[in-house]
Amino acid sequence: MTFHAESPATELGPGQRLQPRHPIVPTSSVLQPLGTDDVRISGGFWGDRQQLNRKTTIPHAEEWVERMGWAANFDYAVNGGLPQKRRGREFSDSEVYKLLEGMAWEIGRSADAELDRRFNALARRVALAQESDGYLNTMFGRPGQNPRYSDLEWGHELYCFGHLIQAGVARARNGGDDLLVHTAIAAADHVCREFGDEQDLRTCGHPEIETALVELWRLTAAQRYLDMARMFIERRGRGGLGKIFFGQEYFQDEITVREADTLRGHAVRALYLSSGAVDLAVEDQDAQLLDAVEHQLRNTLARRTYVTGGMGAQHEGESFGADFALPPDRSYSETCAGIAAVQLSQRLLLATGDPLHADTVERVLFNVIAAAVAEDGRSFFYTNTLHQRHRGQVPPADQPSHRAASGMRAPWFDVSCCPTNLTRTLASLGAYIASTDATGLQIHQYVPSTISATTQAGQQIEVVVETEYPFAGGVTCKVVQAPEGPWTLSLRIPQWAAEARLVLPDGSVLNAGPGVLRVPVSPRTGESIELQLPVEPRWTRADPRVDAVRGHVAVERGPLVLALESVDLTYGSADADLREREVSEVVVDARHPLRESDGVVLVPVRYVDHHDSQWPYAGSQGGLPAGQDSESREDDDADPAWIPLIPYYGWGNRGPSTMRVWLPVD
Amino acid sequence: MTFHAESPATELGPGQRLQPRHPIVPTSSVLQPLGTDDVRISGGFWGDRQQLNRKTTIPHAEEWVERMGWAANFDYAVNGGLPQKRRGREFSDSEVYKLLEGMAWEIGRSADAELDRRFNALARRVALAQESDGYLNTMFGRPGQNPRYSDLEWGHELYCFGHLIQAGVARARNGGDDLLVHTAIAAADHVCREFGDEQDLRTCGHPEIETALVELWRLTAAQRYLDMARMFIERRGRGGLGKIFFGQEYFQDEITVREADTLRGHAVRALYLSSGAVDLAVEDQDAQLLDAVEHQLRNTLARRTYVTGGMGAQHEGESFGADFALPPDRSYSETCAGIAAVQLSQRLLLATGDPLHADTVERVLFNVIAAAVAEDGRSFFYTNTLHQRHRGQVPPADQPSHRAASGMRAPWFDVSCCPTNLTRTLASLGAYIASTDATGLQIHQYVPSTISATTQAGQQIEVVVETEYPFAGGVTCKVVQAPEGPWTLSLRIPQWAAEARLVLPDGSVLNAGPGVLRVPVSPRTGESIELQLPVEPRWTRADPRVDAVRGHVAVERGPLVLALESVDLTYGSADADLREREVSEVVVDARHPLRESDGVVLVPVRYVDHHDSQWPYAGSQGGLPAGQDSESREDDDADPAWIPLIPYYGWGNRGPSTMRVWLPVD
Repeated sequence: MTFHAESPATELGPGQRLQPRHPIVPTSSVLQPLGTDDVRISGGFWGDRQQLNRKTTIPHAEEWVERMGWAANFDYAVNGGLPQKRRGREFSDSEVYKLLEGMAWEIGRSADAELDRRFNALARRVALAQESDGYLNTMFGRPGQNPRYSDLEWGHELYCFGHLIQAGVARARNGGDDLLVHTAIAAADHVCREFGDEQDLRTCGHPEIETALVELWRLTAAQRYLDMARMFIERRGRGGLGKIFFGQEYFQDEITVREADTLRGHAVRALYLSSGAVDLAVEDQDAQLLDAVEHQLRNTLARRTYVTGGMGAQHEGESFGADFALPPDRSYSETCAGIAAVQLSQRLLLATGDPLHADTVERVLFNVIAAAVAEDGRSFFYTNTLHQRHRGQVPPADQPSHRAASGMRAPWFDVSCCPTNLTRTLASLGAYIASTDATGLQIHQYVPSTISATTQAGQQIEVVVETEYPFAGGVTCKVVQAPEGPWTLSLRIPQWAAEARLVLPDGSVLNAGPGVLRVPVSPRTGESIELQLPVEPRWTRADPRVDAVRGHVAVERGPLVLALESVDLTYGSADADLREREVSEVVVDARHPLRESDGVVLVPVRYVDHHDSQWPYAGSQGGLPAGQDSESREDDDADPAWIPLIPYYGWGNRGPSTMRVWLPVD
Repeated sequence: MTFHAESPATELGPGQRLQPRHPIVPTSSVLQPLGTDDVRISGGFWGDRQQLNRKTTIPHAEEWVERMGWAANFDYAVNGGLPQKRRGREFSDSEVYKLLEGMAWEIGRSADAELDRRFNALARRVALAQESDGYLNTMFGRPGQNPRYSDLEWGHELYCFGHLIQAGVARARNGGDDLLVHTAIAAADHVCREFGDEQDLRTCGHPEIETALVELWRLTAAQRYLDMARMFIERRGRGGLGKIFFGQEYFQDEITVREADTLRGHAVRALYLSSGAVDLAVEDQDAQLLDAVEHQLRNTLARRTYVTGGMGAQHEGESFGADFALPPDRSYSETCAGIAAVQLSQRLLLATGDPLHADTVERVLFNVIAAAVAEDGRSFFYTNTLHQRHRGQVPPADQPSHRAASGMRAPWFDVSCCPTNLTRTLASLGAYIASTDATGLQIHQYVPSTISATTQAGQQIEVVVETEYPFAGGVTCKVVQAPEGPWTLSLRIPQWAAEARLVLPDGSVLNAGPGVLRVPVSPRTGESIELQLPVEPRWTRADPRVDAVRGHVAVERGPLVLALESVDLTYGSADADLREREVSEVVVDARHPLRESDGVVLVPVRYVDHHDSQWPYAGSQGGLPAGQDSESREDDDADPAWIPLIPYYGWGNRGPSTMRVWLPVD
């Protein structure tokens, strides 16, 4: 059921439920989404983070869009003062929109009346700035500003509209038929009038509008939005954008979406564009386009992705690099690229049912998105390096930081796409947990929650998931309400889980390997299924073509990538000297296995001493020189030191430190 | 002997020799420079490159500064047409100046009358554009342009003046007292008037003027130039430049020159600034400043330099990265940073006599500067990667390329600092070969040449150097004219030469290790000394903190870093499949030593097969997983393949290829 913007949003009554409360609502797909009211997260790892997002991060972001003047830009647009008083970069409007989207999801989730009041106040300031033809941007079009659409390469106008539309769709799906929804629709209608000529090759330097327009079509059924999205996607790669320093690959305009073989260029741009292309392919039943994008993502996962799931290795251009060029030091792995990878992967999961995509969602959620927010919810990583070589400086609490200025999280950034993007992602996390199809319910992510679904026959399913995942491997699915007759509960066995076990209601046990496990019985009301995932720590090696980590090993535990942080080098030692040690001073002693003690993973290491030489490259004629790691050390036969590793997401919360994910092997 | 600009250059008669034909002429130093007419390169590796520079590269650069419109900008400045008709970036004037400098050195070296005519014609176009107060820049100050000095962070006006002054000094030292010399002096006088207030904190975002002004003082003895250079150097680090995206470290304004511990930020900026600081320290007899800069360079060599001598690892900001963060793939190692490292190192060699600095000059000359020019002299590397992962595309012959767009050399760049910088470096190469002091003659670089020097007592020394270095290790120094009485011939034994031999005139042989070897006899006229350097190939390992090359080995031969290029994978094999092989498909078989056959170094390798997995990181519980390099291969016991390595400088001359310096070890 959709409503039609042709007779705009007036059909939407307050609080009326039209569609799943989900950011992705395909009209048909292999798996159907369950919304954030179908999946109620009740606690645990992600439940805690949703609370922190609500109580701390959203208000923090509200404060900063005021402090930076990015919200006030809308007021100046109404009351005068532009361009002189405008603050922020050309895309700063979008931060307000992403924050509004985050607030909308949170209001839908928690029915927070005070937050709803603040949402309406902020949305009103945005709406008032909209011009009579639907155009809305505080950077362009006024006397003293550049004209509208005069800089499609860098102006981000359509990108901003994309985020406005996504915020409006989120608001509509979370029970509001209010000002922001109408503002978004008016903006989309303006875009369709301005760019809807089939001969027009113009598009935006930053994709984002494409996926937003498909979703607005899904909300409203107004054909022009889908047509406009299709035009934007098909135009790309046809030279509609001017030449830029980084090359046309930067914004994916060097080749068409259908022709590309891999994701490339600016990572967030590539992933947002791909999300829009999947949305379009699903609605057009365009298998060629869907296959093309999925193939590109598969190549990207196989060759251009960090072990954390982080994408976009290069600082310059915030971009994907060459295949297998994945240096852990100074890895870019932008937080927003992680968010975009989750968006794309979830779309492909719904479109194909392939658990690879849920694996990606899990890996990125735990190892990029969880890492990007500080324990206190008030500071953020913009980039997510896998190797911090020097102790960072504590960023100022009252100023925005450079996105990559330090090894510490910062309260805000000059370019601050990531914090607001995190608010909307965390508030809508329920959308990534489970889905339905004709046969039953699929659980993709293991989160303490209550999951409700309705079968095609109109019967109710309700499952309560209890788990301490990712810290423990047990997941209990209590069937509170089962449909009559046969149905299928499907559980994802992650790719890393070589030997999972399933305990059926009758106590019998099945072994299962990675993939989708269809529970071979139809659990009845009151019965429980227990999944046991092997979360013992494991060593991880990279494909040898990732030359940057040759001779290194990582440690993972369940879905978590672990890291060595210098703060932990004093563990179990009274040696005060160790306090000054850095992670560069240990190598893994491979003669010993990993240990785990009280939930803490301990890695066997030896300390090494480094000495500068005038020239750090040593030669030898004749035989190969001794191994690189042959520095003097205390005693080769001594027992190793056992040093705790922490989940990568938690590093940097105990003051400036050095850190590494890939550990050199002795 | 100097001439005084107070009574400007009229004292200089045409062709009059005032100073050594050398870019660095300190009034006093540990070693005194010998100019390009004192050291006449007669052939060999560098002699051939000087010929190519004269016959091809200089005319090529002349053609491109016209094609790009960068020379015509000066004409428009005179005849009207600015700013509308201006072409190029804000620093394009400097390319014309660097080319003029290159032409001046070449005219001094080869007395090429036709080149001198072209020099004068181009210099005249520049000189005519100078305004009456000495200001000269085609980018600023006219109606429709930004005002003079309105963008010191990025405007490059003082940087351009620096190159103009260096060109003028080069012209004066190469026998010309002509228009360009006067233009440079008038520009310098303008700078002193504009910036000479002690209270003024302004300086240029790109250092360069500092070293130029000291050298102009050395030419003219006009005190204001030295004072102005001192002010610019001491101002740096005091916040005189506005905030920029890259952070103030980018242009070395976050801390004073004296306080810094290492080179950091934009590599060329850091190295040019350091050169100026050494010049100033030498003239002010400021040991603290000299020690500070030398300490910074030593730290940089020990922790922030590639095995090629390349500096500046990061593409973003063209900058030094963290200590030991030296990824070989996508290493930036800008050609101009190599040139600047040679300039700085030669200054420190003259100032201290430490052969470390001559080692650096040699390493950078052979492995960065020689690499930057194609065999045909018509295309260039802007960046010098140590690992090319994919075959590049042939850049267009008639368009400028992006600086890092391809793994192939390009005929020109949008930002084209490197080609013109190469012309001046190659034309003035004689300046880096030898020096004198009170005791005799020092030979730093081994080049077929005739070296003339005059002792402090006015006696002549002339030595003819015969060598096939770097391909052979023998260097014969024939003393054509010896002074009466005792004198010392000093020879540098490179740091890599563990066991050099010296054959004295009486046939006796000395062994010598790295450092300065003072020949223990005073060779008489007609006698020869023969140095034998061990140029057998050798394996090289990196300090273990260079994590990016853990488990890899490089191969060097004499001063040359070698490389594996995919073109050579077919060597000695009829297997056509090998033609499609890439350098990622071999690992060094460490059970065998290097071989050398007919001057070709052969490395023992095994071919490995790679297969993509859905996810390129494999885990194992329990013991450490098998080594990364355990891919299936033909037969572990089989003999290795012996694949030729080439000198790194020569890669990329046989069409698109993959290449690597650091080879994974089996």
